[in-house]
Amino acid sequence: MYRSHNCGQLNASHINQEVTLAGWVQKSRNKGFLIWVDLRDRYGITQLIFDESRTDKAVFDLAATLGREFVIQVKGTVIERESKNPNMATGDVEILVTELTILNAAQLPPFTIEDETDGGEDIRMKYRYLDIRRNPVKNSLLFRHKVAMEVRNYLSGNGFIEVETPVLIKSTPEGARDFVVPSRMNEGQFYALPQSPQTFKQLLMVGGMDKYFQIVKCFRDEDLRADRQPEFTQIDCEMSFVEQEDIIQMFEGLASHLLKELKGVETGKFPRMIYDEAMKKYGNDKPDIRFGMEFGELNAVAQHKEFAVFNNSELVVGIAVPGAAAYTRKQIDELIEWVKRPQVGATGMVYVKYELDGSLKSSVDKFYDAEDLKKWAEVTGAQPGDLILVLSGEAYKTRTRLSALRMELATRLGLRNPEVFAPLWVVDFPLLEWDEDSQRFHAMHHPFTSPKPGDIALLETDPAAVRANAYDLVLNGNEIGGGSIRIHDKATQALMFKYLGFSEEQAKAQFGFLMDAFQYGAPPHGGLAFGFDRLVAILGGQETIRDFIAFPKNNSGRDVMIDAPSVIDDKQLDELHIRLK
Amino acid sequence: MYRSHNCGQLNASHINQEVTLAGWVQKSRNKGFLIWVDLRDRYGITQLIFDESRTDKAVFDLAATLGREFVIQVKGTVIERESKNPNMATGDVEILVTELTILNAAQLPPFTIEDETDGGEDIRMKYRYLDIRRNPVKNSLLFRHKVAMEVRNYLSGNGFIEVETPVLIKSTPEGARDFVVPSRMNEGQFYALPQSPQTFKQLLMVGGMDKYFQIVKCFRDEDLRADRQPEFTQIDCEMSFVEQEDIIQMFEGLASHLLKELKGVETGKFPRMIYDEAMKKYGNDKPDIRFGMEFGELNAVAQHKEFAVFNNSELVVGIAVPGAAAYTRKQIDELIEWVKRPQVGATGMVYVKYELDGSLKSSVDKFYDAEDLKKWAEVTGAQPGDLILVLSGEAYKTRTRLSALRMELATRLGLRNPEVFAPLWVVDFPLLEWDEDSQRFHAMHHPFTSPKPGDIALLETDPAAVRANAYDLVLNGNEIGGGSIRIHDKATQALMFKYLGFSEEQAKAQFGFLMDAFQYGAPPHGGLAFGFDRLVAILGGQETIRDFIAFPKNNSGRDVMIDAPSVIDDKQLDELHIRLK
Repeated sequence: MYRSHNCGQLNASHINQEVTLAGWVQKSRNKGFLIWVDLRDRYGITQLIFDESRTDKAVFDLAATLGREFVIQVKGTVIERESKNPNMATGDVEILVTELTILNAAQLPPFTIEDETDGGEDIRMKYRYLDIRRNPVKNSLLFRHKVAMEVRNYLSGNGFIEVETPVLIKSTPEGARDFVVPSRMNEGQFYALPQSPQTFKQLLMVGGMDKYFQIVKCFRDEDLRADRQPEFTQIDCEMSFVEQEDIIQMFEGLASHLLKELKGVETGKFPRMIYDEAMKKYGNDKPDIRFGMEFGELNAVAQHKEFAVFNNSELVVGIAVPGAAAYTRKQIDELIEWVKRPQVGATGMVYVKYELDGSLKSSVDKFYDAEDLKKWAEVTGAQPGDLILVLSGEAYKTRTRLSALRMELATRLGLRNPEVFAPLWVVDFPLLEWDEDSQRFHAMHHPFTSPKPGDIALLETDPAAVRANAYDLVLNGNEIGGGSIRIHDKATQALMFKYLGFSEEQAKAQFGFLMDAFQYGAPPHGGLAFGFDRLVAILGGQETIRDFIAFPKNNSGRDVMIDAPSVIDDKQLDELHIRLK
Repeated sequence: MYRSHNCGQLNASHINQEVTLAGWVQKSRNKGFLIWVDLRDRYGITQLIFDESRTDKAVFDLAATLGREFVIQVKGTVIERESKNPNMATGDVEILVTELTILNAAQLPPFTIEDETDGGEDIRMKYRYLDIRRNPVKNSLLFRHKVAMEVRNYLSGNGFIEVETPVLIKSTPEGARDFVVPSRMNEGQFYALPQSPQTFKQLLMVGGMDKYFQIVKCFRDEDLRADRQPEFTQIDCEMSFVEQEDIIQMFEGLASHLLKELKGVETGKFPRMIYDEAMKKYGNDKPDIRFGMEFGELNAVAQHKEFAVFNNSELVVGIAVPGAAAYTRKQIDELIEWVKRPQVGATGMVYVKYELDGSLKSSVDKFYDAEDLKKWAEVTGAQPGDLILVLSGEAYKTRTRLSALRMELATRLGLRNPEVFAPLWVVDFPLLEWDEDSQRFHAMHHPFTSPKPGDIALLETDPAAVRANAYDLVLNGNEIGGGSIRIHDKATQALMFKYLGFSEEQAKAQFGFLMDAFQYGAPPHGGLAFGFDRLVAILGGQETIRDFIAFPKNNSGRDVMIDAPSVIDDKQLDELHIRLK
């Protein structure tokens, strides 16, 4: 027993007790005849006091040698503090130390172990074990654990069974790039790491498991964008004998449970929006509805005038930015430059200031009079004091650009409060999306997603119009979960593979086991997967996932702490029947 | 909503209710004017009845077409059964069906979906999704989920935090063979899949996480023995500021919790045995103590007579087999052949029949008189009616052989009741073991295990005598968990690597990050890992783990259902900078 209590436990009720504590030296203050040490562990900080007049000399002298992050054990008496600290759980007391043992000395850490550290991203990743000592990271990992426990309690309580599916599976060319694992025992062959347990969970439904879930690592060998990880965690779920409504009810229940238990937030019933509406209103299939700035389509009121730019555009669309009529010319020019950045890609932007006195001034006064602009204000819902910003061009791209602008403005205006939670179901996604590169349709969700039964006939005539039984759960502008009702009969699945450009042989080679399974009594089924890293980060009020992952990799897929990946022995390569190119 | 109730839910209290059920046709009986169908889902079986005189003709005719494993939905009225089945939860009622929908037809399954199936191992693995429908497999997976939930509840309740450690890590030559993953973004470099999260959990301790656990997949690319899987699951645990006793208390608590909650068994305090004693008494570091047959060492009473075989042996050791004096000559000969099998490796066996009348007859009567044999009986604890079996030779091998015989006899005598649970801590393991092949010492547990402080000096003079702060939890003759107190200072860790034959460069290249971490304030720490697959199987009363894994691999490491591993595209190989040899 290294300790009788932890460093967050002692308070006035323990005064006069003899205790043993162990932990890290957060800091010490030496006033010559008095030394204070803040002793830290996972649970808190307790103040130690060494008093020249009351402490054994050897102990006092040893205390004077303690450096930051030394690991020590102390015995002593809990006494009342002279100057209490009401901000600390242990702030009423301190320990008058009688015995001190240095369990492990410490070098000076390469950055300060404080909430606000002086360490940059790179050095903190290299010494991640020190970064984890800092409250922001430590608390994020504790929070992640709590979320996982609540997820399991909710799902298990609702009859779901956690089943572990294999990590060493089969590579398929569909979807993102696989990580592969050469097989030693099967020469020339490779396992793949799962991008998701999709086919296995469907097979569990064929196997009658009825309600499955798993908090599970998944893998994608993609070029890493910011805040993407090559290995990530999903809450993977599937249910049998369900329709879309059953799934939405169940997982709205889960999300509500998490918001209530972890954030104390009661959201009520989640709103729903069809995909087409989300694109029209927000230019985005995962709209952040914590704030307004809904799109107003201006074709009817802005075209057929003298302004060729608008007349030649498929779509003219604007938003009203609340209170922004007061922006200076310089501020507005900066916004125009912002939308012209390559990441956004607009070629220009029209603005209208709707002044508080009701007058309207625009950058296109040459073409539009006050009557015209009044109509724009009506369509965009602008109020006096607002700034109307208008983009135009090809419809899809223009919506996407205006969406980026809307999000940027909301951030600038402080409308994206991380402690406000606005969930939203987006439903009726298209089944297919056209891919310019390969000049064919791809599955928008994945090839196992069921088309809406009424739309199946459209597969022949208008594939882009086929809607899927697919749905996303959006929280604060992030897709936190997505899923679909699956195809459960061989004929429809074969048809789907055909429309996706698979030959019969390819479909059989890659997914024959699934289509076979469908012949032995597959129930109707569907499911959903949450991105767990993202879900935890958003619930934790953060924008980035990195602090919610104990040992993340950098943007080159490297773990800079352990220095992986790394070269391996020729002997290992030999055994695996491969060599380097 | 495909159903109002599940197939295990309805009883007499539901009589006269209109219900909707969905599930699989377990079987049907057609008496011409009456058709009964057993409808099955995960929750149970409900009997359906179609009555020519009361059922719509179209429905009745459709019912006549139903085959085994068809997926159907029915609506109907709960009625009282004429011939009740008290062995079924739903045995008091049946459903008089008014509507029938075939949701999915089924081909005849390749084996019967019954508790006792006609399908062999291979075919059941190929159609694992059908095997999972069978109660023995389904219930094993449900049980596994329950065990995992109880593990998490216990550990989380005791302040442990589940932290996910990375799957894509770094290959190290120490220990078993790694599975590796070529990196696309880091040419010529490879990740490895973890054999255990050992170093990461130690880094979490350095990071102050204090109490960590994880139910986690681990990977070993070893030639597969029966009942080994290339991917397996561990309950991985680590604690800071602990001594061996703290860890034993905590995880004895976990094992007791599981036995109580899942099996209703109260075991009391677990016995402990030091490694040397386990080897001497049972020839085994994981003795099954559900039964006796402890070893009696006979050197003192059997050597120095005329029998050269014994005189030339390092060890003469026997066991008393209860009630086996009645064995025929043929039965005893069979046992002698059994120990001579290559898997056991003995060259012969001496036996003594201790007859019920107190007389003693042996296969070595030429060399030993009744007085001598009486002493053997005393040493082995034999009673009249027992059979004494004696092996001799090199000490370690002879113990191992006698242990194998002891286990075999216990199985034959029915002494290994799977519903009796006999846990045991084995402690004081040797730190090192000599490896004949490489002519050097290897770490018996792993290189991070702490020697007992008092034994450190022996590392120079008598390495084999150094004991480790290592412990195993044994249940019914299986090691279900093992762990140790770890080294937590750089100097001792460097010393250990030296004794294990690492050069300073090798140690730094492979484990430099860990030794660096020890310099920044590492707390004393230790932990333990349970083999989760095995633990669940033993708690479930089974000898083999396969039915407790949803999608196991065969002895060649293949998943025969999805047919993995498999060949991959040249394009994939190119991108990964490798080619086949």
